[in-house]
Amino acid sequence: MLSAVLAQPEKFHTAVSVGQQVGEHVGIFAFAVSGALLAVQKKFDIIGIAVLATVTAVGGGIIRDLVIGRTPPIAFTRLSYAVVALAGALLIFCWHPPLRLTRWPLYTTDAFGLGIFCVTGTETAHRSGLGGPSAAIVGVVAAVGGGVLRDLLAGEIPLLLRRDSELYAIPALVGCTATALLIHYGHLDDFTGAIAALAVFALRVLALRYHWHAPQARPHRRR
Amino acid sequence: MLSAVLAQPEKFHTAVSVGQQVGEHVGIFAFAVSGALLAVQKKFDIIGIAVLATVTAVGGGIIRDLVIGRTPPIAFTRLSYAVVALAGALLIFCWHPPLRLTRWPLYTTDAFGLGIFCVTGTETAHRSGLGGPSAAIVGVVAAVGGGVLRDLLAGEIPLLLRRDSELYAIPALVGCTATALLIHYGHLDDFTGAIAALAVFALRVLALRYHWHAPQARPHRRR
Amino acid sequence: MLSAVLAQPEKFHTAVSVGQQVGEHVGIFAFAVSGALLAVQKKFDIIGIAVLATVTAVGGGIIRDLVIGRTPPIAFTRLSYAVVALAGALLIFCWHPPLRLTRWPLYTTDAFGLGIFCVTGTETAHRSGLGGPSAAIVGVVAAVGGGVLRDLLAGEIPLLLRRDSELYAIPALVGCTATALLIHYGHLDDFTGAIAALAVFALRVLALRYHWHAPQARPHRRR
Repeated sequence: MLSAVLAQPEKFHTAVSVGQQVGEHVGIFAFAVSGALLAVQKKFDIIGIAVLATVTAVGGGIIRDLVIGRTPPIAFTRLSYAVVALAGALLIFCWHPPLRLTRWPLYTTDAFGLGIFCVTGTETAHRSGLGGPSAAIVGVVAAVGGGVLRDLLAGEIPLLLRRDSELYAIPALVGCTATALLIHYGHLDDFTGAIAALAVFALRVLALRYHWHAPQARPHRRR
Repeated sequence: MLSAVLAQPEKFHTAVSVGQQVGEHVGIFAFAVSGALLAVQKKFDIIGIAVLATVTAVGGGIIRDLVIGRTPPIAFTRLSYAVVALAGALLIFCWHPPLRLTRWPLYTTDAFGLGIFCVTGTETAHRSGLGGPSAAIVGVVAAVGGGVLRDLLAGEIPLLLRRDSELYAIPALVGCTATALLIHYGHLDDFTGAIAALAVFALRVLALRYHWHAPQARPHRRR
Repeated sequence: MLSAVLAQPEKFHTAVSVGQQVGEHVGIFAFAVSGALLAVQKKFDIIGIAVLATVTAVGGGIIRDLVIGRTPPIAFTRLSYAVVALAGALLIFCWHPPLRLTRWPLYTTDAFGLGIFCVTGTETAHRSGLGGPSAAIVGVVAAVGGGVLRDLLAGEIPLLLRRDSELYAIPALVGCTATALLIHYGHLDDFTGAIAALAVFALRVLALRYHWHAPQARPHRRR
């Protein structure tokens, strides 16, 4: 039996730091919890919770890998990703806050995953040979992708777009740009990467806490 | 003009049994009928029926092929797939049960396609070089993908997630795991594959008939 | 830093005419405007407008590139695409018709993008080595893909399927088939391509203007 890894071009093998691997698993766990919380809100059963948690957790990474041409996407071959996602689903199935209090846990775990995937997404895209601006764009897609799939599957307008979404895309853009700059100047390591991820998280949580909104298009008053 | 087939890596050329080819076409027809029935329920016109039938029928296979890196996906080059899907759409356009009786035909054709695509999806993923567990996961994605796209495009929460969904993912998981085990022990052939597909179908239909449900998360009573 | 372009197989480098490049940018602008108009209708903020405009503008092309195996998709490496899409979003953010008058601008810009992407999508798919019928199918997917993503993300049933959709898929099919035939007989150039795109646009706009509809499945009267 051919190992799937053999099918991957050499460029995807360059060393990934232990910090990044730990980070990816933490991000997957956080996104899985956010997906499971939405599934509980929607009164899905345990299967629905497990599916929505897993899709949220690995969806962004799968889109990222398809975009950079890494097939099969790593989520299909590194099974620890699915295990961590299912652990998040099980946790929320067994214990979750009362329904009317799920909003903040959902938004903060989502923000946490968002921060981490900005950094790992941009870094992975760069490692595959993309230049800085392109890598940052792929990073944004990787970071927001899982949440968009989660919201679509649950029948909601994605947080990314919602009018009351309190700056979802802005923190992601900032984090991915910062990561691309850190890479460009040779300063990306586990420490600076963690700082960038935390900055995204903080920016998003502050926007939620203080209801920062982007401007809406003026309603038209003429006639 | 370059044949599209030339662009495909050698690994996708290993012989596929006649039984599997027949199976794929039957599965495509069944999924097309399920998509067409949902389109009729939604009062789409003949174009909408044809589009939804085709997307349901080939969507899972396209996702599978993108995941394993087989581009262009086979549905774009083997035109018999589209012909069979359109035949299913035409059949339902010309003759369909009264609207209030479409639920069972929709669910049973969907279950039939699900069973077949579990087997062919897992087998195709394995043939592309994936190990057993990874191949089974790709198989699940191939089997449920068409139905998820169908439900999303029609503005419904996917059957895969719905609270009243009566074990949709469980039969798929069982079928793909069984197929991966059959491959591992060298026992997958047209006959055992057909048995596995029928087992998925039977499990799903029994779950529908007897309203087997997975547990829901306890509503929280503590305040 | 490895240029992303180096990662692309040779077949994607054959010369693209200036006319086609101009056309793609015009199509992206038109689709971006249609996405931004829907975002304004939905009362999204400026971020939501920019995101929906960009996804609509480049979504079809990204799906096309994934299908033909061109990774990363050109939208991630040619940044002028994103710039043009954001320009369309900004235009609509600053100036847009009163909400109750957005329907026609949305539908006509969408029809314009549809026409152009039929031609460029089919041509790109053919250049990647696909035969005529397959290239035409990929062209249809490229042409309708952005609009489908736009409608799904905004929580609407895609125009492609909607009962009141006045022949959305038919013009696309006609345009892509015409383009494939022009290629086959060696007559595709900037001029004939523009004619084909305009024919799609005209057919769609006439269908809208005169409410041409495809037949619906007979409601069942037997009981």
